Amino acid sequence: MEKTLQSELIYGGRRIKLYRDEVELPSGKKTYREVVSHPGSVAVVPIVKEGEVLLIKQYRYAIKGLIYEIPAGTLEKGETPEQCAMREMVEETGYLPRKLEKLGQFYPSPGVMNELMHLYKASQLVRRVPEIGTPPHEESIEQVVTLRLSQAVDMIRKGEIVDGKTICGLLWVVFGIPKVEQY
Amino acid sequence: MEKTLQSELIYGGRRIKLYRDEVELPSGKKTYREVVSHPGSVAVVPIVKEGEVLLIKQYRYAIKGLIYEIPAGTLEKGETPEQCAMREMVEETGYLPRKLEKLGQFYPSPGVMNELMHLYKASQLVRRVPEIGTPPHEESIEQVVTLRLSQAVDMIRKGEIVDGKTICGLLWVVFGIPKVEQY
Repeated sequence: MEKTLQSELIYGGRRIKLYRDEVELPSGKKTYREVVSHPGSVAVVPIVKEGEVLLIKQYRYAIKGLIYEIPAGTLEKGETPEQCAMREMVEETGYLPRKLEKLGQFYPSPGVMNELMHLYKASQLVRRVPEIGTPPHEESIEQVVTLRLSQAVDMIRKGEIVDGKTICGLLWVVFGIPKVEQY
Repeated sequence: MEKTLQSELIYGGRRIKLYRDEVELPSGKKTYREVVSHPGSVAVVPIVKEGEVLLIKQYRYAIKGLIYEIPAGTLEKGETPEQCAMREMVEETGYLPRKLEKLGQFYPSPGVMNELMHLYKASQLVRRVPEIGTPPHEESIEQVVTLRLSQAVDMIRKGEIVDGKTICGLLWVVFGIPKVEQY
């Protein structure tokens, strides 16, 4: 446990806030912690049909490059993770899933940021938008691709998929996180 | 591609920096991007013996809670990822690995942060510190635990392991990311 002595808001942005907190460690020593506050997010592994996954190729300004990702997005005010997952699926892929299963949830960067990401598997996809819609929030989606799950895992192995949530989601779905007895 | 028109340093901390950049989108429209700049990091899956992994239980101020994680840390100036992996292993577990294999690298949060994390598997562990050393940087490691890999995967399934890099690393090692033909 670390006790917050003082919390200073350094920056309050549209999506993230940065705090610099003075804290007291269990030893009694004082130090500072920088925390990026984030409203939380969802990521969705969209299964087009048995053994096939849909990925998006997207420009990410933070890393100045195009990367393959599963559809994902930030929770909006008053939105449940399930609603957010459905919205992001339509916005980013043009498909609405008839089936949405929660796989789990995780912290992508717990050392820096409080973002909690909810991970889903989506299937029975129904096309909602004739072509990929215009994503809001100035997203730059370049391409939606359909791949065999085995191809996608091979791309992880080769270093062609380098997005953390996408690696988590694909491995989770491919290997199904079987029960203990099974391996 | 998004063109940087102007970059403003909002905060320059010990480990992270926050920038607010004005950018021009491919459409010609202008917007702002918030980017957390991070020096990069490593994470290590330590294999104690065949089928057994070592995890640490650590307090994370950002999420105000204790979570299970694989050993990990931020790259120091002039340090290679391999050196960093070795240092973090000794600091956080007391063991130095005689064998270190690179599994891959990924961006934990490419929508917000440029952090690139290098992922390793460590084995043939040799005890260097009689008990767990005092971790520097005011880390709060509560406990080092040894688990069967199957147990660890079960903890992912049950939601008891909620750290992104740990989920990536454990699934990567457990399933070995076999070649395409194998599944």
